[in-house]
Amino acid sequence: MPRRTSRDIRSDSMIDVLHAVLSAGETTRNDLMRSTGLSPATVVTIVNELIEADVLAETKVSAGRVGRPTSIFGMNAARGRILGIDVAETYVRATMFDTALNQVSYTESARDEHVLEPGSIVETIGLVVDELLQSEGVCREGVLGAGISLPGLIQEPSGMAVVVPNWEWRSVELDRLRERVGLPLVIDNPLKAMVNAERWLGRGRSAASLATVNLGTGVGAGIVLEGEVLRGATNSAGEWGHSLLMLDGRLCRCGRRGCVEAYIGVPGIQHTLRELAPSHPLADVELQSDFISLLAHAAESSTPDDAARETVARTAYYLGSALADLVAVVNPDVVTLTGWTTWALGGQLLSPARERMRSQSPGRAGAAVELEISAVRGNPVVTGIAMIALERSLVDAGLLTTRIPVVL
Amino acid sequence: MPRRTSRDIRSDSMIDVLHAVLSAGETTRNDLMRSTGLSPATVVTIVNELIEADVLAETKVSAGRVGRPTSIFGMNAARGRILGIDVAETYVRATMFDTALNQVSYTESARDEHVLEPGSIVETIGLVVDELLQSEGVCREGVLGAGISLPGLIQEPSGMAVVVPNWEWRSVELDRLRERVGLPLVIDNPLKAMVNAERWLGRGRSAASLATVNLGTGVGAGIVLEGEVLRGATNSAGEWGHSLLMLDGRLCRCGRRGCVEAYIGVPGIQHTLRELAPSHPLADVELQSDFISLLAHAAESSTPDDAARETVARTAYYLGSALADLVAVVNPDVVTLTGWTTWALGGQLLSPARERMRSQSPGRAGAAVELEISAVRGNPVVTGIAMIALERSLVDAGLLTTRIPVVL
Repeated sequence: MPRRTSRDIRSDSMIDVLHAVLSAGETTRNDLMRSTGLSPATVVTIVNELIEADVLAETKVSAGRVGRPTSIFGMNAARGRILGIDVAETYVRATMFDTALNQVSYTESARDEHVLEPGSIVETIGLVVDELLQSEGVCREGVLGAGISLPGLIQEPSGMAVVVPNWEWRSVELDRLRERVGLPLVIDNPLKAMVNAERWLGRGRSAASLATVNLGTGVGAGIVLEGEVLRGATNSAGEWGHSLLMLDGRLCRCGRRGCVEAYIGVPGIQHTLRELAPSHPLADVELQSDFISLLAHAAESSTPDDAARETVARTAYYLGSALADLVAVVNPDVVTLTGWTTWALGGQLLSPARERMRSQSPGRAGAAVELEISAVRGNPVVTGIAMIALERSLVDAGLLTTRIPVVL
Repeated sequence: MPRRTSRDIRSDSMIDVLHAVLSAGETTRNDLMRSTGLSPATVVTIVNELIEADVLAETKVSAGRVGRPTSIFGMNAARGRILGIDVAETYVRATMFDTALNQVSYTESARDEHVLEPGSIVETIGLVVDELLQSEGVCREGVLGAGISLPGLIQEPSGMAVVVPNWEWRSVELDRLRERVGLPLVIDNPLKAMVNAERWLGRGRSAASLATVNLGTGVGAGIVLEGEVLRGATNSAGEWGHSLLMLDGRLCRCGRRGCVEAYIGVPGIQHTLRELAPSHPLADVELQSDFISLLAHAAESSTPDDAARETVARTAYYLGSALADLVAVVNPDVVTLTGWTTWALGGQLLSPARERMRSQSPGRAGAAVELEISAVRGNPVVTGIAMIALERSLVDAGLLTTRIPVVL
């Protein structure tokens, strides 16, 4: 059991303050006392420390009608740059942020998913980083750190990092990655990155426990309990996409049968349409993103398209059923939906999925849980992994004590 | 997000010490330093404080060949009595423990599950308590407290306690219960009680994260993460028995379809046998406990009973599949099995269920997780709820800061 110290408690208070500042954009000490519930002395000490460390910056001083002028401050955007990099089977997407988490620039690069040789993957990541830096004329010294999300990153008891499926990276490959990128690195898996965005920038500000569900080609959940990301024994917690919806059901791309993902991942949704109407014009659309937007359009169209509507209805039924399982086991305050299927189809899925989730959750857990579309837009993996890199820079500065799994 | 203080940290260290003492029976300060990893100063301070508070007692002093004599101590069994009471739909079972958690006496009383009137349930509990006290000639002043496990106890944001299913107890009924029992009370639900036994007396001593799965008429899981019981937003976490094994599958007694419990709860196991061999002699055995012991016997018998063997094999397949879902979401270090189905059939289920669990868990979570039969024997609900009552007495004494949900 990891031991907590009084430094951890100070760190928790600091996280609350940073949460509140990120949420408010600009704020004052008095507002922070109200929004965090911390004592005036604690808020003053922490804000002064964060200003001293250049994490917060005073933006203006407002002279009130009475009393002393009030200092207004926010995140110090000029402290440096942070990179967030989402490495997936078929692409590398990367964003440069400033230290107030504003997006500065973006780039992406396609990957051939059949190329598994680590050197090639490392080089693709390196080129994306070079491009981001060059496009903005930023040198490496101006970057506080980079976060890299690698698919299926796990941790073994030895502390060594391994990447699954299909990749086997150990310390040699990770060393090579660090050398090529040439920046302080943090590495995590996409579910942990994604829920970290929700934790810092979304519902994590107000909910003690939450699950964030990513809907795309693959599906998965990130879980936050009492403000901390649930990692599990091997950093693999949240693989709800590969929990059972149907014993011995549809074959999943993971090789097992009946996984949630085989029903509500995009190929699963298309499978549902094909079951309902094998010759439907959308049954063979090749690009997944095209399929989802066309399906969303067809299901809402004034021209009746029963198969499209039924596909959306069944997807909501599957989603709500599977969410009820997550609620049964974890009993969170709120579940949020994110990912590109959510952006395209979430509006149609939300209400029926919520109803099904609530009716299928045992006891009163269902009545107590909220289902919402995440307010964190864009690519939550990129944003979340950048946020972990920013956190790491605060840990390095001695301000936070968060445990970050893989730091290079 | 609950705030942690330096008192919580002291409390964590004290829990580690108590864990180690409960585990060892008798121990020394030097042994505690080794087994807890705490500093000598911390161990000395905490042990002195616990001896001062009569929680620990010196049992003997051993004179070594060199140096000062060594003080040997253990839990102080004479501090008082603790009652653990498991109220289920069809029975009330209660055990009196001493403060070293040794069983002093036991009683049980049948309940008519159709009687839902709170006054009658309260009176049954009261009579069981009276009987325990009278049989041992213990007066109420000699009892530190009682723990009562109530089926489906949840908590609402208002802090009010409600009991489901079928019972609706609020503060009026809980007040009546407190008055009738006349002892300091803690109340929790069976899953939280059960996992608390594992946390204090079983695998919780060595594993940071664990799930304990109860197999009986109903099934459910208790979850411990980083040493703390996962409660969830409404104290309903761990209702894995009502997560899906099979969408739209067998009707569960909870009214939903396809729940894990409908396959591996005892009536579910009998359902499997009936599917395989409707006229099998065990298909209509009425008493669940008889059915399970006869099935265990038939499946191991030298006289071939294919239906019994296949029933056990399918139950292990269902169990392993459902455990893989728990592993996917929570990624614990270890899963333990408990409850009376486990005592009767666990030896036959363990190995095939473990294999299925591991092969069905995503990534490497399956390879990392252990599946074991719990070393905490007897009724883990009774033991666990008594342990919560003991914990509460330590909280009242200002020694621990554990948050206990319902304290009357």
